[in-house]
Amino acid sequence: MATPRFRSLDDIHLCLADLPAADSEVLAAAEARNGSLTKPPGALGRLEDLAIWYASWRRDPRPSLTRPQIVVFAGNHGVAARGVSAFPSEVTAQMVANFQAGGAAINQLAATFGASMEVVSMDLKHPTQDFTSAPAMTTSEFCKAVSKGWRSVNPAADLFVAGEMGIANTTSAAAVAAALFGGGAEGWVGRGTGVDDAGLVRKRDVVDAGLAAHAARLSDPLDALRCLGGREMAAIAGAILRARMERIPVILDGFITTASAAALECAAPHALDHTIAGHLSEEGAHGRLLSDLGKEPLLSMGLRLGEGSGAALAIGVLKAAVACHSGMASFAEARVSDG
Amino acid sequence: MATPRFRSLDDIHLCLADLPAADSEVLAAAEARNGSLTKPPGALGRLEDLAIWYASWRRDPRPSLTRPQIVVFAGNHGVAARGVSAFPSEVTAQMVANFQAGGAAINQLAATFGASMEVVSMDLKHPTQDFTSAPAMTTSEFCKAVSKGWRSVNPAADLFVAGEMGIANTTSAAAVAAALFGGGAEGWVGRGTGVDDAGLVRKRDVVDAGLAAHAARLSDPLDALRCLGGREMAAIAGAILRARMERIPVILDGFITTASAAALECAAPHALDHTIAGHLSEEGAHGRLLSDLGKEPLLSMGLRLGEGSGAALAIGVLKAAVACHSGMASFAEARVSDG
Repeated sequence: MATPRFRSLDDIHLCLADLPAADSEVLAAAEARNGSLTKPPGALGRLEDLAIWYASWRRDPRPSLTRPQIVVFAGNHGVAARGVSAFPSEVTAQMVANFQAGGAAINQLAATFGASMEVVSMDLKHPTQDFTSAPAMTTSEFCKAVSKGWRSVNPAADLFVAGEMGIANTTSAAAVAAALFGGGAEGWVGRGTGVDDAGLVRKRDVVDAGLAAHAARLSDPLDALRCLGGREMAAIAGAILRARMERIPVILDGFITTASAAALECAAPHALDHTIAGHLSEEGAHGRLLSDLGKEPLLSMGLRLGEGSGAALAIGVLKAAVACHSGMASFAEARVSDG
Repeated sequence: MATPRFRSLDDIHLCLADLPAADSEVLAAAEARNGSLTKPPGALGRLEDLAIWYASWRRDPRPSLTRPQIVVFAGNHGVAARGVSAFPSEVTAQMVANFQAGGAAINQLAATFGASMEVVSMDLKHPTQDFTSAPAMTTSEFCKAVSKGWRSVNPAADLFVAGEMGIANTTSAAAVAAALFGGGAEGWVGRGTGVDDAGLVRKRDVVDAGLAAHAARLSDPLDALRCLGGREMAAIAGAILRARMERIPVILDGFITTASAAALECAAPHALDHTIAGHLSEEGAHGRLLSDLGKEPLLSMGLRLGEGSGAALAIGVLKAAVACHSGMASFAEARVSDG
């Protein structure tokens, strides 16, 4: 698939207006297969739903899952200068080096579950604008970031996970979520990597200032992502959109990834039907965001790291679901009485 | 380690009275390592606790997890004749053949997470006695089953999962749980593989009858397991005891496995400290049982299959936890500012 030329928000909206759907015939075939397997009906719980969902997107009633791809997008944020993080902005680039050297959590998780893992730096030396005074990105910068995310997806992958790294990006994500779902800063701002009480107050003030500064633009979900998000968030949206076009299922990670993805769903309902929520982050507003998106998280382990870590952990669950669905014998094959 | 001669319940009680503990020095070293890794403190949530717990039992502050062992124990139950299951007793042996042929869910899960997988048949042609009229097992039969479980553990394994298969064994497990924790049949009997309302009433009556028949013996948790359990349940208790002696951590599966293990904990508090709860089963009383044991399940996916399936799914989580703990770089190694 050629990369579309995203030069305006309208170009992206046009792409969102024509998304492929899951294959309903394959879905029915996968449901029938599931009903024939050597287990009491429903005894594998959510694993059964996961496998059927996966099959319907892969257009294969007996699919395999062998090529998961993880891409971690890193970006720097102008609002970091406003004291909204417990860590300095330099840490973004330091962690990119750590990802490249294989020393971060996501590297170990990728290896554990047999996923490829790349890191994509989003112009780290040029942070986004401080969104309290200007849009975080120009339209050109935003479209460039979306396109970079789009290009990062390997069309031969059979599962995609987007991770993120960006000092101050829980502030950006809270602003985007508030713009998309309402409620102001109060309901969306949390402690991120661990800010103190004063930092939390600053985060709320910064988010409310951003919402006020761009109020006229926030009715377009993509414009909300441009004005309040970050380059890594725009890239995540672009990658998830590309995965949809390629019918590659996606596992969503935590608060920042989900806020980025939410812009797509708000712009085009059902745009996230090819995605599942890998986990519930300890970052407080993630649960509200998933609930607003109608997504039930697979795991709840108290993670709040980002990097794609919670989604990567869920790769194991999805692999297990697909392995059971595609590998188990039927009652007839195994000559087991079906009750 | 030589197999002890279990000829009486006292022999097993003697073994339970002298259990090895986790290594507190290694625990402290693993905690220190965890604090040095490139992530905000606590950002990996329960994964951090899991890795530290695992390290303390393996006596290695930077352990690996590469040799998980799954053993599925299968047994037949005299109470099956009383109409307490949706499936006939023949299915136990049919499923054993399915396990051996690689067609069951647990085979796919073992392959997904790189675990070895064996099935141990517990004298399937001779079901236990119907416990409403006699103890399910003689002392000799019980000790033989415990010993068989003991011998099934590979001392070179670095993680152990016990699964079970046995038509009617949710009835036996409910009886054992009620004997150990009180409350009568009402609080412990569920639908198992899917009995109807009339079957549910029969299960309750059968469990209450068993509790009444053996009331004088139930104050000894091991005798409760002998009188009301099954051979596969006794074997599971023996295997978990052996794993403790070998300092092999154990992931508990669902209701039947946990009820079997609970007899050890009730006989010797802390006997299950080397175990974690892999998941919360959809079989209703499992949550109560875990709560009585002070165990918080890792996963909650609506599984109610047995076979060790929920625990096997959690192998991926534990592998991920250990991989992060042992593979991540420290702040100093990666030259990342630690805030």
